[in-house]
Formats: sequence, structure tokens, C-alpha cells
Amino acid sequence: MTAEPAFTPADPGFERRVRDSFARQAAMRSLGVSIAALSPGRCELHMPYDPAFTQQHGFLHAGIVTTVADSAAGYAAYSLMPADSSVLTVEFKQNLLAPAKGELLVARAEVLRPGRQLSVVTCRTAMRTGNDEVPVALMLATMICLHGRTDRAS
Amino acid sequence: MTAEPAFTPADPGFERRVRDSFARQAAMRSLGVSIAALSPGRCELHMPYDPAFTQQHGFLHAGIVTTVADSAAGYAAYSLMPADSSVLTVEFKQNLLAPAKGELLVARAEVLRPGRQLSVVTCRTAMRTGNDEVPVALMLATMICLHGRTDRAS
Amino acid sequence: MTAEPAFTPADPGFERRVRDSFARQAAMRSLGVSIAALSPGRCELHMPYDPAFTQQHGFLHAGIVTTVADSAAGYAAYSLMPADSSVLTVEFKQNLLAPAKGELLVARAEVLRPGRQLSVVTCRTAMRTGNDEVPVALMLATMICLHGRTDRAS
Amino acid sequence: MTAEPAFTPADPGFERRVRDSFARQAAMRSLGVSIAALSPGRCELHMPYDPAFTQQHGFLHAGIVTTVADSAAGYAAYSLMPADSSVLTVEFKQNLLAPAKGELLVARAEVLRPGRQLSVVTCRTAMRTGNDEVPVALMLATMICLHGRTDRAS
Repeated sequence: MTAEPAFTPADPGFERRVRDSFARQAAMRSLGVSIAALSPGRCELHMPYDPAFTQQHGFLHAGIVTTVADSAAGYAAYSLMPADSSVLTVEFKQNLLAPAKGELLVARAEVLRPGRQLSVVTCRTAMRTGNDEVPVALMLATMICLHGRTDRAS
Repeated sequence: MTAEPAFTPADPGFERRVRDSFARQAAMRSLGVSIAALSPGRCELHMPYDPAFTQQHGFLHAGIVTTVADSAAGYAAYSLMPADSSVLTVEFKQNLLAPAKGELLVARAEVLRPGRQLSVVTCRTAMRTGNDEVPVALMLATMICLHGRTDRAS
Repeated sequence: MTAEPAFTPADPGFERRVRDSFARQAAMRSLGVSIAALSPGRCELHMPYDPAFTQQHGFLHAGIVTTVADSAAGYAAYSLMPADSSVLTVEFKQNLLAPAKGELLVARAEVLRPGRQLSVVTCRTAMRTGNDEVPVALMLATMICLHGRTDRAS
Repeated sequence: MTAEPAFTPADPGFERRVRDSFARQAAMRSLGVSIAALSPGRCELHMPYDPAFTQQHGFLHAGIVTTVADSAAGYAAYSLMPADSSVLTVEFKQNLLAPAKGELLVARAEVLRPGRQLSVVTCRTAMRTGNDEVPVALMLATMICLHGRTDRAS
């Protein structure tokens, strides 16, 4: 919640590594998601509202909101992991606070506790309309680091 | 877990109501999801593997798996709700058990405890390849019934 | 995360109402828990280390840590509810970050989104030894307000 | 949910190992909890109603219900782990279904997916009064196996 850089990355090349992995997530491309900010232990993703991914009332589907939040949380954790590693989601819990109504989905993930194997991450997601933001979801997630398995080998 | 029909629906027209609502979820159409089975308190959704919705290793994205599970859980709950109501997801927790590798995603949701307002639902998700199924996720979710607000009015 | 008072209580007598309810929780007395701080939307509870409530390695049991966090989260939410209401836990998720080793358990709960019916609350729990604090758990919880049911009637 | 023994334990001496560890949990003794059934991947714990561990309405505190469920889930997982290992709770989510009103708390945990490191476990908790059982909680938990660290060394 503070502006100070809380974490020192194990891999100085973390940014390229995260961006390369993100670029290989076809789901992010199909949903129109982009990386808005990236720093050690933090990742902010944006997704413009898209009527193709809505629920029955015309708002973004809770699962789509969660997809963006999960990627943000995974890459926040992955930014602190070593070069020759992969990241996988162990589990997450997502509270939906309000319908995802607005112009732009903004998912801000932050590592709360990095670990050699398991990392605990939160992601706060809001919908932005003009300069206004309304919180729509809150995630608490556990990510695992697979050591010695580069993310490129699939 | 048993084959017996555990619940009596409050609305005898539940099937049409659920199918109508599902048909209005553009996200389901975009992901290629269909209703494979529907009964009071239960809903099974199918989604063929689609490379457009994968993560960095080429498997279905955990968030996409969750999107299908969330819809299955929501409609399992909604099948037991009254005619003039809507359903919203309060929150869910999803454990990812294995990468979503295979031909067909199969999400089976079941209401564990229906309530006037809150319902607790599980969803077991597997990937099917030929006749083989591998569990990939397990969800525990809370759904809320909005009384007096028909699902059609958005 | 900020020091500013974020919420205005619906009931100006919230403090007495919360303290009365807390005093009726026999579990808090048996565990030796006390209210260390209380303000609208926030509650901090303390529990001195007690070998009677430990797990197999001599640290406070994860469930006991969760018991204190659950009460803190419930009372943070209850502080914002109207006078003639009760609070119940709908569900929570707790991540255990480290063994609960130290002198004093400190659970700090904060309402993230108050609602007429459902409130979303976090609770950060740490173990304090001297002036040092180590985070041991993080909770994300959903509480429900039962309107028209005073907490005293059981 | 089936009667068949689903799992083969890695350690034939699992029962003594689990019972020894359980006996070292002072919290279980203080709460009056006992092992009612134990088999590979499953554990059932009982706790007689105790007014000393109630919430403000005189029912067992949700956190105490969770404490018993967490131990049941941990020992269900631990029964499948190797001899020279310990078990720790990574996280759990607990849905509270009804107030814990009755004579005996019965927590039945079952491993859903055992893993070398992480195991996913559910625990269904009920309150029994006479021959009647009412479900009160449902847990979905993640446990971790610490290899090479015997449970006795603390």
C-alpha cells in the first residue's frame, strides 16, 4: 500500500522475463489485457471493457475479472522468482464487491509474503470510468515457484 | 455426490429461466461453453479446449477454468431460486489441482446448502481426453439471491 | 492501511454494543483475548501466548489464530452495523504465513467494503515478541448483518 | 464420499505417527477433541459441546469449529505423508453453514488430491444431537508436507 519498493528481485532481468511470459499467454491477448505497470512484487494489468466477455446483465463476467486478477497476481509473484523458474497458481479466493461496470478493468497485484516455494499475493481490482474508480473485486492468492523449470519450456 | 435428486425447485420453470440467462452471458458464447446437464441444484458446463484462452504453457488459463466453474456454480444455485430473482457471485475459492491439459473442460457444480439469500456451491472441474478425465480444479463458492429482481432486467 | 477514520458508524453507541457482545463470547475469555483497539470499521484483539492452545510443535494452533482473527473481523464489521442487529460469519479464507511463535498474538481487522447485508473484512495477524512483530496470518472474510435481531437475544 | 479405501499410505506406520502428533497438540486436549476414526487420507475428530468455547449466542465459536476442522484436515493429509515428514497448513477457506448448536461437533476430513508437497483436503463439519446431524461448516484446505523434518522435533 506504500510507494516504496519493498522487494529486491532475485533476478535483475525480471522485467523481460515477466513480459515474455505474459506475451505467451494467449488468453491475455484474446481478452485485450496489457501490462500497465510492473515492479518487483507488483503488477498492474488493464483490460478495456469488452461486451464479448460479459455476464447476463452486460457487465464483465466475474470469471473474466478473476482471469485478469490471477494473471496480475501470478506475475507479481513471478517478478521475485529466480531466472530459471516457472510460476503456477495453487489457489485463490476472490470476493466480488460490485458488478464490473465501467470502461477499464484495472487489476493491481502485490506480493504480501514472498517465499522460496509459496508466495501469498493480493490483487485489488477496480473498474475505471473517466477518472473515477470503483472497487469490484479483492483476491487473496497462493502462487508456487517451480525451480529449475524455465517458463519457456512448455 | 449421490445420484438422487436432492432438491425441489421453487420455480417449476427453472430450466428455461437458467437457459435464458445462460444464453445472455456473452462470455459463455465467446469461450464456446455449453450446458451439458441441468437439474435442480446441479449444472454441468462443457468447453472445448481453445488455444485462444491459454496461459504461457499452452493449457487453459486458470482464470478461464474459473470462469466456466463460476457460471456452473451460479446456475446450479439459480436453478433453486424463485422465478423473479437474479443470482450474483459473492465470492469463491478455487484450488487448481493440475494444468488444464486435454480436449474438453467439464465443470460440474452442485449446491451444498441452498438458502433464501445465500447458497453454498461446489464445482469440480476436469479435463476430458477421449474417455479419460483428470481433475483440474475444485471450487467452493457463495452465491446470493436478489429477490424481486428478474434476471432479464439489466 | 491509512490512519484516517474511513467510516462513519450507523450507531453512535457502537463501542458499547461491540464490547458487550465481545464480553459474551466465552471463547474469548477462555483464550485470554482482549480488545486492544476499536474504532468504526476496525478492531484489534490481543492474545498472550498460551501453551494450552498450541499445535504439535508448541506454537499457537492455526485454528486458534483463526479464532482470534475471526472475532476481530466480526467485530470490525459489527461496529458499522445498526443498533438492532447481529453479525454472523458467512465464510473466511485464512493464509498461514509463518508459525505463531512469540509472546503476543495481535489480530488487526479492517472492513474493506461495508454493506447493508454483507461486509468484506481483512484481518492481519502477527506475533509480537518485545517490540518485534512477525506476520503470521492473513484473512479475507465475509460477514452478514442480521437486521432486527439484537445481539443480546440468543 | 465413497466407502472404498482410495489411498495407499506411503508409511505403513501412519496411524501411530498421526496419533502421536495429535497427542502433542495441547489445543486438542484443551478443547476436549478426540480421534473418532482414522484411515489413509481420512480423519474424523469429535468435540463435545463446551460452553467455555462459545460465541455471543452460546453456540460453539466459528473459530473453534475451524480449529477442529483444521486438525482433521491436517491429519487426513499427514496420514498419507512419509515417516520423516511434518505437515503444516498453507491456507484454508471455511464456509459456515449454520450455528454450531448441539451436543457433539463431528469433523470429517478427506484428502481430495494428495501431492508430494501440497495436498488438497476438504472437511465437512456437523453438530450431532442424539442421532441427528446438522451440517455446520465446509472447509477446503491446502496442506504442505515438510520432507525430512520429523514431526517430533520442534
